[in-house]
Amino acid sequence: MTDHPTKSEIPAARTAAVLVIGDEILSGRTQDTNLGTIARFLGAMGIRLAEARVVPDIEIEIVTALNVLRGRYDYVFTTGGIGPTHDDITADAVARAFGVDITERADAIAILEAHYPPGMLNAARRRMARIPDGADLIENPVSKAPGIAIGNVFVMAGVPAVMAAMLESLRHRLVGGPPLLSRTISAYLAEGVMAEALGAVQADFIDVSIGSYPFYRANRFGASLVFRGRDNAVLDQVAGRLRAMISDLGAEPIEGDPPLV
Amino acid sequence: MTDHPTKSEIPAARTAAVLVIGDEILSGRTQDTNLGTIARFLGAMGIRLAEARVVPDIEIEIVTALNVLRGRYDYVFTTGGIGPTHDDITADAVARAFGVDITERADAIAILEAHYPPGMLNAARRRMARIPDGADLIENPVSKAPGIAIGNVFVMAGVPAVMAAMLESLRHRLVGGPPLLSRTISAYLAEGVMAEALGAVQADFIDVSIGSYPFYRANRFGASLVFRGRDNAVLDQVAGRLRAMISDLGAEPIEGDPPLV
Repeated sequence: MTDHPTKSEIPAARTAAVLVIGDEILSGRTQDTNLGTIARFLGAMGIRLAEARVVPDIEIEIVTALNVLRGRYDYVFTTGGIGPTHDDITADAVARAFGVDITERADAIAILEAHYPPGMLNAARRRMARIPDGADLIENPVSKAPGIAIGNVFVMAGVPAVMAAMLESLRHRLVGGPPLLSRTISAYLAEGVMAEALGAVQADFIDVSIGSYPFYRANRFGASLVFRGRDNAVLDQVAGRLRAMISDLGAEPIEGDPPLV
Repeated sequence: MTDHPTKSEIPAARTAAVLVIGDEILSGRTQDTNLGTIARFLGAMGIRLAEARVVPDIEIEIVTALNVLRGRYDYVFTTGGIGPTHDDITADAVARAFGVDITERADAIAILEAHYPPGMLNAARRRMARIPDGADLIENPVSKAPGIAIGNVFVMAGVPAVMAAMLESLRHRLVGGPPLLSRTISAYLAEGVMAEALGAVQADFIDVSIGSYPFYRANRFGASLVFRGRDNAVLDQVAGRLRAMISDLGAEPIEGDPPLV
């Protein structure tokens, strides 16, 4: 344990985890962007994304991670593995995690039948209508094959546009809280120059979480100071302290992130 | 459990996990790219990245995740939280996870003293020389403050350019294996059109892992079929089967990913 000031943790009404499912992320073939999309969506709802995991297309890995996460957090969002091909095993894994059967559901078949031209709803596509018992469907306005809501788990597609649409579709199911307010003040000062004074500001504001994120731009080092809390008046005080700190150290406080150059 | 063909898992000599440490990833402020960089680095060395986790800047979360991962995989790579500010708590968390003390180390101080102009190595920057007992330093050719190698854990910076440089610095410590060979054949065919025949190809080649990754480009749906294995001759056979499958379904096989349009 350190004797230095450490970052405050701001409690949230509800917590969430993301489970990214897919070999393509772990091989480095595909750059995940769904985590950030979900993170910002939840943040705006006042739900704290507390953890994320990435697991391969291996059933026992999905089952194990899902059962840990759904026991620990209020909500779990999975992405990936719900298409028609042999490597799409998420629905089966979710059923196994919950200990329920998985069967082709009439309401899901009806959605797919309405979407595909006659004769095109083949056996592989029908697999996308296999839904764990007791689950609800999550509407997919983009490509129709539904997501799955079961217990506190929301099973979504991996394709970012489809995932984002499903996230909107399930918004009404989520109970949020007051959103965490976030502000940023930046400076062209090395983190090491600001660190001591910054730690003192953090120590004075236990209800505000202050993070320091270094950048290198226009051949100069700097850092964005991101401070989050629930009380605008308190954030005003922190902003004042940070501006004064930056000026005292001989730099100009920049509201927000520095402009791209 | 499904009665459909499922994806093959190709064993690797060694496995690894990545632990991304940082509120900025879980808030959606920052898009992580280190996971993909590490994944491709390890893949080329024949080490399988088997899992990744993202945890916040909370010591107990870092400690718990690290102890699970280092027990389970041959190597663990952490990113983030080793700078000079109050929210940089990774080194302390690593010491706690290993149950060792953490102290300012003379060799690390010497590196920092050589880097900063006289008088600029302040208390905050000296914190970057606090190293868990028994650890080695990982060279940082970019910004000098070292990473940490302890047991099977490699503690790296979060800034992508620094992380990438540290990864190169520790390459000689890693024991890899024959790299997994990876090829891609794509087609403008919907996944659901290919799925049944694709599953049959996977079922015929248990030593090859075939993944299907849909795309939408030039107003058309398609999928990239990525197949991995250790034997080039077997991959040639799979490639032949996939090209024939695509042609039989009325499309042109595309070698690799489809061109960007």
